[in-house]
Amino acid sequence: MRVSALAGACYDGGMRMVVVGGVAAGMSAASRARRANPDAEIVVFERGAWVSYGACGLPYALAQDKPDWDVLVARTPQQLRGRGLHVQLEHEVTGVDARARTVTVRGPGGSRTEPYDELLIATGVSAVQPAWSVPGLAGVHTLRTMADAQALDASVRGARRVAIIGGGYIGLELAEALRARGLSVALLEAQEDVAGRALDPEVAAPVRAEVERGGVDVRTGVTVEGLGARAGRVTGVHTSAGFVRTDVVVVAVGVRANAELARAAGARLGRSGAVRVDVACRTAVPGVWAAGDVCEVRHRVSRRFVHVPLGLTANRMGRVAGVNMTGGAARFPGIVGTGIFKVFGLGVARTGLTLAEARAVGLDAVAVDSALADRPGYYPGHAPLHVRLVAERASGRLLGGQLVGQPDAVKRVDVLAATLHARGTVHDLEAYDLAYAPPFSTVWDALLVAAGRTARALGRPPPDDG
Amino acid sequence: MRVSALAGACYDGGMRMVVVGGVAAGMSAASRARRANPDAEIVVFERGAWVSYGACGLPYALAQDKPDWDVLVARTPQQLRGRGLHVQLEHEVTGVDARARTVTVRGPGGSRTEPYDELLIATGVSAVQPAWSVPGLAGVHTLRTMADAQALDASVRGARRVAIIGGGYIGLELAEALRARGLSVALLEAQEDVAGRALDPEVAAPVRAEVERGGVDVRTGVTVEGLGARAGRVTGVHTSAGFVRTDVVVVAVGVRANAELARAAGARLGRSGAVRVDVACRTAVPGVWAAGDVCEVRHRVSRRFVHVPLGLTANRMGRVAGVNMTGGAARFPGIVGTGIFKVFGLGVARTGLTLAEARAVGLDAVAVDSALADRPGYYPGHAPLHVRLVAERASGRLLGGQLVGQPDAVKRVDVLAATLHARGTVHDLEAYDLAYAPPFSTVWDALLVAAGRTARALGRPPPDDG
Repeated sequence: MRVSALAGACYDGGMRMVVVGGVAAGMSAASRARRANPDAEIVVFERGAWVSYGACGLPYALAQDKPDWDVLVARTPQQLRGRGLHVQLEHEVTGVDARARTVTVRGPGGSRTEPYDELLIATGVSAVQPAWSVPGLAGVHTLRTMADAQALDASVRGARRVAIIGGGYIGLELAEALRARGLSVALLEAQEDVAGRALDPEVAAPVRAEVERGGVDVRTGVTVEGLGARAGRVTGVHTSAGFVRTDVVVVAVGVRANAELARAAGARLGRSGAVRVDVACRTAVPGVWAAGDVCEVRHRVSRRFVHVPLGLTANRMGRVAGVNMTGGAARFPGIVGTGIFKVFGLGVARTGLTLAEARAVGLDAVAVDSALADRPGYYPGHAPLHVRLVAERASGRLLGGQLVGQPDAVKRVDVLAATLHARGTVHDLEAYDLAYAPPFSTVWDALLVAAGRTARALGRPPPDDG
Repeated sequence: MRVSALAGACYDGGMRMVVVGGVAAGMSAASRARRANPDAEIVVFERGAWVSYGACGLPYALAQDKPDWDVLVARTPQQLRGRGLHVQLEHEVTGVDARARTVTVRGPGGSRTEPYDELLIATGVSAVQPAWSVPGLAGVHTLRTMADAQALDASVRGARRVAIIGGGYIGLELAEALRARGLSVALLEAQEDVAGRALDPEVAAPVRAEVERGGVDVRTGVTVEGLGARAGRVTGVHTSAGFVRTDVVVVAVGVRANAELARAAGARLGRSGAVRVDVACRTAVPGVWAAGDVCEVRHRVSRRFVHVPLGLTANRMGRVAGVNMTGGAARFPGIVGTGIFKVFGLGVARTGLTLAEARAVGLDAVAVDSALADRPGYYPGHAPLHVRLVAERASGRLLGGQLVGQPDAVKRVDVLAATLHARGTVHDLEAYDLAYAPPFSTVWDALLVAAGRTARALGRPPPDDG
């Protein structure tokens, strides 16, 4: 039976759903579809050897001298098959005929054509390979998949030095992990700050200091010009500031959507190069859906489509697709740009727009930095907490926030995310009845103090909502 | 010059503001008024020997063998006087003539009459003294003020056993503090659960287990019938379950508003016995204001006036009063019922209404309990996190939430508080873009999972707000 979900029909079984990609979005979709339609045939093609694992856990596994990869696996292929999901590992979908509703699949036994009624493209992202990269050079790695992590693990055994190229959150998490394994770690970043794409410069500065305290040789403003090699193995990195000798290189300069299949199917790509879907996770091609890292999503604050591949977004889109592909009616609510990472003893979190991002989309924004404490000075373990709030000048609407402090202090970024979802102002935020006891916060939680300062910087009257 | 703030006039100096009570609300008001009006004469009468200290820190100071009381002091009387605040310690205001705008003050030098233009009553609360209490019996204590804490500290030196009567958050914090000093601690609670006034029974159960793991002899469902004494000193507690021998007793069975002065001034009291003020912190008596623990406040979820004396509320009301008494226009936004405490290795937080509270105010509410994890199973230090959400059945509106888990996991109650401020539903909550990385949470933060389960329990469709 072939009924398009576009018609909103409820399936009574017999439909064949094909999912391309078996990690976050793909497995979420398959599982949700299975629950919604026990009779559907659900096939998952994964080009790698692992499915249903927590890719965000890879840096933490790598911190161990003997990584335990299995703990990252949510469900094994056997368990998934037991649930009636036909998981096929090492099967790459290389083509799609959206009119015929077939895909071409290349597996260990060769290529074949498979039919589908509904197709989900959840092909994720790949690490960007810069122009200077040398295909096949031993000792050079990226980190996206389980296979990447296992190859890197093998490579660092016996190595003394590693150079990480790129100071985004993956590079930073990895720097900490490899320091924990006793490696000498150099971090090379082209921009002036580490984590500088996610944070305004005022917030990024202490991150660098913490990474250096952790024993990482941080070099910013450094352009990579090429790799040195001998006998097919990397020996160092040629940079604008000289040659950096190393045994292993990890390239972590960003990702790009694996959008080729979607494009071949006729799906529209956004300016980022990622797939554009509607709130139901439909592409414009009948029977073809997309979800997860391969997609752009709507940013609820800027109202723009953005490509911000993160775990929760991928899982949520997968669920939405799985529901809708089996005749349900779920909608992806968009994101507000929330992100968080830990590096050594520091937690870093952001949500909404940075000042630079707000200005880039034409908003008249103000940013206010507050150097605060996360707990009362008399409570053991109190530490500084930097809060930067970004607000719209005329309305006082909160546009974003950035926090740097102890790891256990920065998850409160979620309060800002909630405020963004509600389109609240800094005056709204200042009025929140937040939890206080000395082990948790100051009487006026740092967010309340920051909101008050931001409100005063805007020259707006106090809240009036009694 | 005597101009009523009720007229909304802007003072140009010369007004005399009298503040009764120099802790949270009183000092917040005085400081804020000082900033708003550099020319006003501001007098603070405090019946105790300390002002401007963090009363919530007293249990933590008491955990030390030699408590450092000074660290709790935000500003000394000398510092406050340097800012032009005339702080008078050990001065009790015993009467008020609101027509004449005078107060009667009893200090070390006797009683006198003092004029005011604007009077703030910030007299706080006192610990309830049950019927069985014996005035003047040595070894029996309450814990509200610095003086109380110092007396208790002196009393436990050399003591071996302490019995805490009352298993609310103060009793629990104190039990931990005194265990840290090596005392044998019994906790006697009349209800079946500890923390049972703040939490539904489903959430309170693990709190008791943790307190017992901490070495406290917890006895619930136990009614105190009297105190045993010898030679003017307590020797034990007579209870419905027998005699409990002890060297020291701490009575922590609740508080009542010190509303006598406000009542004498003609202010209206609410059903709780605390003072009823408007959103500007005015009483109904011209020139008389009240703020802090002595007041009822509006609960934004139940829309009722409630007496929930907590630090942030007191500070916030003090600020509002200080602004308004000097001609400004601030409004107290009310509370949503947020509270948090730590006891041993457990954090406990709540906001909004418990199921019992929701039903008591006539709401058709549903509660859903979710036993979750605060971090992925592969991340070191992950632990269980219990989330209970309360929602209105027909609308899905979030009415409240309770969390029990590791201390660093429960401050996320603030996300629920933000949702309550915005009058959001559990569907809104489920759509939040919350921060995820393995050191901080599961991919789907526990709040998102709990929101989803609660939404499904309501039988409501998924969110549709794309």
